[in-house]
Amino acid sequence: MSAEDLAFFERTAPGRVFSGETISADYDHDEMTEYGHFMPEAVIQAQTAQEICEVLAYCNAHAIPVTPRGAGTGLCGGCVTLHGGVVLSTERMKRVLEVDTQNMTATLEPGVLLMEFPKALEGTGLFYPPDPGEKTATMGGNAMTNAGGMRAVRYGVTRDYVLGMEVALADGRLITLGGKNVKTSSGYSLIDLMVGSEGTLGVLTKLTVKLIPEPKVNLSVLIPFDDLQACIEAVPQVLALGCEPTAVEFMEREVITCAETYLGKKFPETTADAYLLVRLDGASRKALEPSMDALTELALRLGARDVLLADTDERKESIWNARGAFLEAIKGSTTTMDECDVVVPRDRIAEFVRESVAIGREAGVRVCSFGHAGDGNLHIYACRDELSEEAWKQGVTQFMERLYAAARGMGGEVSGEHGIGHAKKAFLAESVGETQLELMRGIKAVFDPNGILNPGKVV
Amino acid sequence: MSAEDLAFFERTAPGRVFSGETISADYDHDEMTEYGHFMPEAVIQAQTAQEICEVLAYCNAHAIPVTPRGAGTGLCGGCVTLHGGVVLSTERMKRVLEVDTQNMTATLEPGVLLMEFPKALEGTGLFYPPDPGEKTATMGGNAMTNAGGMRAVRYGVTRDYVLGMEVALADGRLITLGGKNVKTSSGYSLIDLMVGSEGTLGVLTKLTVKLIPEPKVNLSVLIPFDDLQACIEAVPQVLALGCEPTAVEFMEREVITCAETYLGKKFPETTADAYLLVRLDGASRKALEPSMDALTELALRLGARDVLLADTDERKESIWNARGAFLEAIKGSTTTMDECDVVVPRDRIAEFVRESVAIGREAGVRVCSFGHAGDGNLHIYACRDELSEEAWKQGVTQFMERLYAAARGMGGEVSGEHGIGHAKKAFLAESVGETQLELMRGIKAVFDPNGILNPGKVV
Repeated sequence: MSAEDLAFFERTAPGRVFSGETISADYDHDEMTEYGHFMPEAVIQAQTAQEICEVLAYCNAHAIPVTPRGAGTGLCGGCVTLHGGVVLSTERMKRVLEVDTQNMTATLEPGVLLMEFPKALEGTGLFYPPDPGEKTATMGGNAMTNAGGMRAVRYGVTRDYVLGMEVALADGRLITLGGKNVKTSSGYSLIDLMVGSEGTLGVLTKLTVKLIPEPKVNLSVLIPFDDLQACIEAVPQVLALGCEPTAVEFMEREVITCAETYLGKKFPETTADAYLLVRLDGASRKALEPSMDALTELALRLGARDVLLADTDERKESIWNARGAFLEAIKGSTTTMDECDVVVPRDRIAEFVRESVAIGREAGVRVCSFGHAGDGNLHIYACRDELSEEAWKQGVTQFMERLYAAARGMGGEVSGEHGIGHAKKAFLAESVGETQLELMRGIKAVFDPNGILNPGKVV
Repeated sequence: MSAEDLAFFERTAPGRVFSGETISADYDHDEMTEYGHFMPEAVIQAQTAQEICEVLAYCNAHAIPVTPRGAGTGLCGGCVTLHGGVVLSTERMKRVLEVDTQNMTATLEPGVLLMEFPKALEGTGLFYPPDPGEKTATMGGNAMTNAGGMRAVRYGVTRDYVLGMEVALADGRLITLGGKNVKTSSGYSLIDLMVGSEGTLGVLTKLTVKLIPEPKVNLSVLIPFDDLQACIEAVPQVLALGCEPTAVEFMEREVITCAETYLGKKFPETTADAYLLVRLDGASRKALEPSMDALTELALRLGARDVLLADTDERKESIWNARGAFLEAIKGSTTTMDECDVVVPRDRIAEFVRESVAIGREAGVRVCSFGHAGDGNLHIYACRDELSEEAWKQGVTQFMERLYAAARGMGGEVSGEHGIGHAKKAFLAESVGETQLELMRGIKAVFDPNGILNPGKVV
């Protein structure tokens, strides 16, 4: 990158361009430092769509790679600069531009943090359902990875809430996709193509999301089981009850203990081997009673030790905070690790968990898992602990290859919600096959003929 | 098309190839004969994915246009052969292959009729929510146009229920998209691109849809208003109640009277000018009572004449059957007509209806409307009645141009659920603009480089 390039960027975004020594080390990785460090040649902290368009037009003309970045909380290396060039950060674009209570929509800049967004909705009676674990992620990053989260069982994933987008194309043109309409059959769904494209097809500059009326009451129920299999096998039956659970999370004792250590706080119950955590939303406590009764009866019949109701804010918080800390807690419990985010049909979850334990044993790596059992989407972690470099490399490679193959064999897909980035590219290629990969690459070339947008990612 | 071509088709689908005189006149149009008659050179009634692939590979190599067709119930000329070639019909592929109660999915051939599908779900306690008005449409056609329907307010549209697809590409290769997984972030969402692509990107050969537990109770409420404006203005307030209505339909007396004549059956109430029809789903009648009370209180406060509960099957049927017959009834009431299916943000519906009446008056055409008020998606009809050919052409052209422009000005889109076909192409181009059209054409070229698939449609 030349001094001339940097001077152009500096004119476009004065005081918000960093290069060389002035770049914070944060920009050379996402949450998974395990996937390597890649220092960009420049970081531009954009403040407007106009700036983003100007940077893109320039980079497109000068063949400079552009890697869009939100908060850098991804888990697949999606926002790192594999091929140098600039990081185009939207971290300063954090305004909620409008909350439209009539249409039940919010329009916001891509850098708004997931944890900040609810503040803009206070007092409106409206609610944004997606609830990915990483609250310091940006809303833009959530849209571009189609983030899932705890409440997807009932409410769906980020894709289901994206109604409108303003996107800067690779050549700097700005387009508006969708808007505030709740349905459409008007040509190819470019907006659905953009969601989950991880910054390889365009740079998000504005987002309109759907809101729903806030459920008045929610209850959480913690269900301890004596063994992992009984626990995970209960999941399809819980779903079949028809009581529309908001969340059905699965967790093992080992992960809970990690979280207790990490947070320095006690979890309400740690005597059992495995737990289901179920949340129900409704209009009133009374309205939820029949569902609660059915759930309790079912759980006890399936061998649960107990059914613990968390109805105070304090109790709910202690459980959900622990759940939210699992990833960090596992990281803290080992030297290094790798993770797998496959999704399988819901009736194969028990089998998949069993497989992951067996494969881990054979590969010689410690395995722990938790996740969105109600969606068939588990996060499975291989932990290095005290393994030698060589034993770890060999073990984790074998583990991951066999795990993805097992998921494929069950009709699963590579990622339920974390995306592909560069870390999961080979697994995606294997999973979708050459024909689909060719179509995806063709689409990429339509949107980004010079290949400047987030090169080396997804396809 | 040569005798050699026909001989190839006949070898591929013996006894199911029609050409020349043997082609039924049904194949030269869809439901809108107003958009012209286009006789195909051949009709192939495929029975397997394999046959479809063979026909496509041959046509791709020989540059023969292929127009996929389900039941031919579209409203935009999406399944007619503008450029000759073959109609590839899936009407014989009508098997429900599997109902998976554990994963709550069904897998079916594309030719299954919407009205036949519920029979396959009987006794499972499961339910397929999308409910487009045209029950003789195929499930494949619904997926390829992203059909909406009466229950979209609560449950969403067809796109929200398509989990997996098997698709034959233009060159005859077969790909499988998605499966039974309920979420995914695994590369570009080709399945979302295929949904709503109206057979221009591939031919659907198999479909997996999501099912949900059947709501145990449903109530319908008919709310008469003295004038159209008061009625339509009530819609956003009904939605804001937070009682999750399944359907919020709008209808004028004139349309109801047409339906009474068409069906030869009386509607329960025809003294008011305009009506809202609201459906609520729930676990029990008791569970729905608070919502019913809130809805009644609101409606009366907003000037409704009455709130009529339809809780017997007979009463419900008489109302919903009339609703289902509106399109045919309007057709029957006039000499010829044209329709507009725009969607606007929900808070602009009242304004849009007002506009449509004013524009109709100025253009000198009779206008009637009904539709999915809760989605911002109204079906607006211009009726020719006794107008001269010239007066009608001029009037309807002016009416449609101004109506689409009004929708655009309100942030609306060209089609809420009917699609684009060839009839709405010009309006789509105007609505999305040159840049998006260029992207869509680029995508089309990736999937169908020789341009054989449904040429002249959408883009």
